[in-house]
Amino acid sequence: MSVLRQNRATKNWVIVAGERSRRPDDFKMVETAEPLPAHDPLCPFCTGNESQTPPEIMALRKPGSPSNGPGWQLRVVPNKFPALQPAGDLERREKYDFFREMDGLGAHEVIIESPAHNETVGTMSYAKVEQIILTYRDRYLHLEKDSRFQLVTIFRNNGLRAGTSLAHPHSQLIATPIVPARTRHLLEEAMRYYDDRGSCVFCDMIQEELRAKKRIVLETADFVAFQPFASRVPFETWILPQKHDASFGNISVAKAKKCARVLRRILGSLHRLLGNLDYNYVICTVPFKDADENYYHWHIEILPRLTTPAGFELGSGIYITVAFPEETARYLVRAIEDGGREG
Amino acid sequence: MSVLRQNRATKNWVIVAGERSRRPDDFKMVETAEPLPAHDPLCPFCTGNESQTPPEIMALRKPGSPSNGPGWQLRVVPNKFPALQPAGDLERREKYDFFREMDGLGAHEVIIESPAHNETVGTMSYAKVEQIILTYRDRYLHLEKDSRFQLVTIFRNNGLRAGTSLAHPHSQLIATPIVPARTRHLLEEAMRYYDDRGSCVFCDMIQEELRAKKRIVLETADFVAFQPFASRVPFETWILPQKHDASFGNISVAKAKKCARVLRRILGSLHRLLGNLDYNYVICTVPFKDADENYYHWHIEILPRLTTPAGFELGSGIYITVAFPEETARYLVRAIEDGGREG
Repeated sequence: MSVLRQNRATKNWVIVAGERSRRPDDFKMVETAEPLPAHDPLCPFCTGNESQTPPEIMALRKPGSPSNGPGWQLRVVPNKFPALQPAGDLERREKYDFFREMDGLGAHEVIIESPAHNETVGTMSYAKVEQIILTYRDRYLHLEKDSRFQLVTIFRNNGLRAGTSLAHPHSQLIATPIVPARTRHLLEEAMRYYDDRGSCVFCDMIQEELRAKKRIVLETADFVAFQPFASRVPFETWILPQKHDASFGNISVAKAKKCARVLRRILGSLHRLLGNLDYNYVICTVPFKDADENYYHWHIEILPRLTTPAGFELGSGIYITVAFPEETARYLVRAIEDGGREG
Repeated sequence: MSVLRQNRATKNWVIVAGERSRRPDDFKMVETAEPLPAHDPLCPFCTGNESQTPPEIMALRKPGSPSNGPGWQLRVVPNKFPALQPAGDLERREKYDFFREMDGLGAHEVIIESPAHNETVGTMSYAKVEQIILTYRDRYLHLEKDSRFQLVTIFRNNGLRAGTSLAHPHSQLIATPIVPARTRHLLEEAMRYYDDRGSCVFCDMIQEELRAKKRIVLETADFVAFQPFASRVPFETWILPQKHDASFGNISVAKAKKCARVLRRILGSLHRLLGNLDYNYVICTVPFKDADENYYHWHIEILPRLTTPAGFELGSGIYITVAFPEETARYLVRAIEDGGREG
């Protein structure tokens, strides 16, 4: 018999229809593609092809190496096909007092994470992943200063099924001039919880997960990772700072490095366990103006794309998943332990 | 330059990043599979394999033909791998006063739409599609009588990218014992609009779409179909009853047949225009208890799966689409006109 579970933070229900005990191999990605080369002369993100991207916003590069040429370790460039651009104005236009539209004002940046074409966060050195998270932080703090923007969403699409067409390791960020309805609903739910109980629902979730000890994946002094009680997909994993903080923008350099190590270790273990899996991760955070609220708690959501959401998910918002997080968390913990300190 | 648009009913924003004028061929599905046979001896939904499904709940069949054998035109059976089942109880359990769970109580039925393995709604006879919509209505009215259920979601997954593994034409319905958070948010937004303006936001949307005359796809005395101003995906199309009605459960037999003809004509035209496209459709309706509310308006949402939602969509709820509905609606209107009365 299946069960319905509700995520107390998002209020979303899921159906866990785990008919039988599944082993990690049941979820393993089938490798259909040839292994990638370390360098692909046709890839616009590879060394030597810097002119194929818009000019770089920033880069970590060898001292003295000129911008937009080789010699870099990480580059941030505007997306060549931007969803939003820092131009236009903020005015909302209403046609017939009904259809609401505004300029596609915002920012859409690509973080090219490594010159090596065939890496991914789960296989990189810890130092490289630290650079990536520190770069997220830098860009966040920079974009936060622009009063036209309200929210920055940082995300990574790994693999075709996760919606990317470029194999070269990269993440993206989009700054929006509006607060999306989904974000507003999440904040409202968290605010109602705070109103009821006087505590942050995510802080409570961390406490209860640590107490239940069934879905914890990794715990350090600063971060905790678990597979949520109401996981939407098999191996969904959240990483949260132990100490309450609404906004990713408040993260210190030291903590950003620690966050990177946790992220790297989890993704590395997922890779070892499931093969070169397709996944998205997203940094869920508040609009700039809510950076110091006591009811939301920034975190990273890792969503493996092992299944395809269909009409029921689109219509109801209820995900049907085939695995209990208690079970998949156990597999992931074992993989993390097998990996040892260096993941 | 892209634009941000908000759907006034759902309050969801989308980004329309249409860099250049696209032609229908830019969206056409690449046919990779062999054409399907009319009968597949290995398909559990094909004639002769009736014993491979759970016993039928109802069927349209030749007078005198025995249940669960050949001779049917349409069958409704419980899903063999049900997400929810009509067993268990309604009590919500809370572990540690935090983790909310309940039995997977509900119903999950499959409507096998035709004995022909190689049909789809867009290529069936009008009479068959009428049977399908009338069957949705019958099952809805039946399940509505069960006081354990609160909402019925009827949906169709067409093709691999839309999340189905079985090619044989079928739809599904799931009755849930809870109101999903997504549905509640949609109702709340519609209620707030009603509170502001004293009218149903969907009724207003129909009026404004008819006035704008830019995204209307088809209009009959009883139904109107358009591609929403803030379409999430290329060729997203909504079908709404012209007259206000919150619940699909209120539809008459006569109107159900008319709805079927509109649905058939639109899907047939999408097929002619885009090839054998993958899509989901969902009947969006209210919980049973809200059947006579004045602020919501049942409708069918057709969502072609021509693109893959990625991390940004998952994190922010904002869809990035590459086509303006004004443009894709024009293509679809032309295809409908070319098809003539019989689609």
